[in-house]
Amino acid sequence: MTKSPDFDHLDAFAQTLAAAAARISLPLFRTLSLGAENKLDKGFDPVTEADKGAERAIRSLISEHFPDHGVIGEEYGEHQPDAEFVWVLDPIDGTRAFISGLPLWTTLIGLRHHNRPVVGLIAQPFLGEIFIGSPNLGSRLITASGETPLKVRDCGTLSAATLGTTDPFLFKGPEADAFGSLRSAARLARYGCDAYAFAMVAQGTMDIALETGLMAWDIDAIIPVIENAGGTVTDWHGQPVGGYGGQVIASGSTSVRDEALTHLGRAAA
Amino acid sequence: MTKSPDFDHLDAFAQTLAAAAARISLPLFRTLSLGAENKLDKGFDPVTEADKGAERAIRSLISEHFPDHGVIGEEYGEHQPDAEFVWVLDPIDGTRAFISGLPLWTTLIGLRHHNRPVVGLIAQPFLGEIFIGSPNLGSRLITASGETPLKVRDCGTLSAATLGTTDPFLFKGPEADAFGSLRSAARLARYGCDAYAFAMVAQGTMDIALETGLMAWDIDAIIPVIENAGGTVTDWHGQPVGGYGGQVIASGSTSVRDEALTHLGRAAA
Repeated sequence: MTKSPDFDHLDAFAQTLAAAAARISLPLFRTLSLGAENKLDKGFDPVTEADKGAERAIRSLISEHFPDHGVIGEEYGEHQPDAEFVWVLDPIDGTRAFISGLPLWTTLIGLRHHNRPVVGLIAQPFLGEIFIGSPNLGSRLITASGETPLKVRDCGTLSAATLGTTDPFLFKGPEADAFGSLRSAARLARYGCDAYAFAMVAQGTMDIALETGLMAWDIDAIIPVIENAGGTVTDWHGQPVGGYGGQVIASGSTSVRDEALTHLGRAAA
Repeated sequence: MTKSPDFDHLDAFAQTLAAAAARISLPLFRTLSLGAENKLDKGFDPVTEADKGAERAIRSLISEHFPDHGVIGEEYGEHQPDAEFVWVLDPIDGTRAFISGLPLWTTLIGLRHHNRPVVGLIAQPFLGEIFIGSPNLGSRLITASGETPLKVRDCGTLSAATLGTTDPFLFKGPEADAFGSLRSAARLARYGCDAYAFAMVAQGTMDIALETGLMAWDIDAIIPVIENAGGTVTDWHGQPVGGYGGQVIASGSTSVRDEALTHLGRAAA
């Protein structure tokens, strides 16, 4: 039998990684000289020095302290992706918010053990917030003034639900119709959230976070935060998403999630 | 000739009012017991104890210190609206963000002198930010770590512009078409902003803030912040908006604003 992983140590290390990323990203936030390359041939996908520098800082610490761990990151690809432990990183989720000066971008750091997301954090350095989930910690919000347990809420029915997503125009074709149907059925929808909407679900101030087209590094870190707060993260069929992303729904309530899925099913991939 | 108004004193008093509002609103932020009445017969317009309590706190200070000043507020209506000085208040702009736990709601406090907006502030207490504009101060961001001058940027052309608005579904019929056209022509659009998008224009991290259906208390406080930072606030015809709200566009550049107006003109009221 293998020795049980030292998650205490890894929880703390995840926070060390977030702090290292913040030392790069935060001084660049709201600086006008910020470079924003165009990563896509078509459309606009800004990649700033903050993204790249923060991911380099994280990778450097991992290779120094845990050279046998794998890494999957948005900016610099895969390294040992089949290792027992694999870190899954988005140094700045919400780069568009970042370059607009809006303080809802986050740093996402997740850890897979045998391919399963076990530790994850959503950090917002400008606000000084770390939403973290792990087997040892449960789910909690860590700030300079202390730690608060995170607990989802159950709003009972979809008609009472507050829904968060990033940009409604990211839903195309049947997805746009499905989103429109869900939006009309919910009580309230808020936009511009990126991963921060998932943190709001974990803390029980929103009921549903919905996205499409996610990559592993957009969602892996989020799963332990939501699940340890009592919530659920699935694809639009209600199946697990860990490892691939795509269409994602997180909710504080499986029954509200299931009600939402009746609107989304027509567009589920 | 009348004595020139003591704007120094009034600038400071506006900040005192913001602090009083924050003492009510901030302790209620992210509390699950928050009441959210339905102010409209149809639809969902949450009015929380935070809105009402914060406006009462502000009104109480005004009547104590400046009993001859008028007040126009979202929650408690008009008092002496024809006075030489009239305070125009939205204690919580972005109540939907507030009840969702998202830290982009603001307190808006404006002061009209002879019907002209002269002093205004946009406060975000959770972030500890006050964006203020006045004849004496110019426009600046005040935080616990100091004061920073606010200066809009000129992105040159609409195709380089970052656009912010609250909810794209607030634009109906011809407005929706006009917004879609503008969004396609701009570089990037961000949502969920409420008045915070105007603060981002003032600090030069966004280029355009666009809204429709605003009331006086949604926009009066914003005008001195943007204008003293070098920007422009008009309706969708390019005319002044002070005093009535409606369709509003703020920009760091009159030429970019004029380019945007070619997309909006078809829907301008």
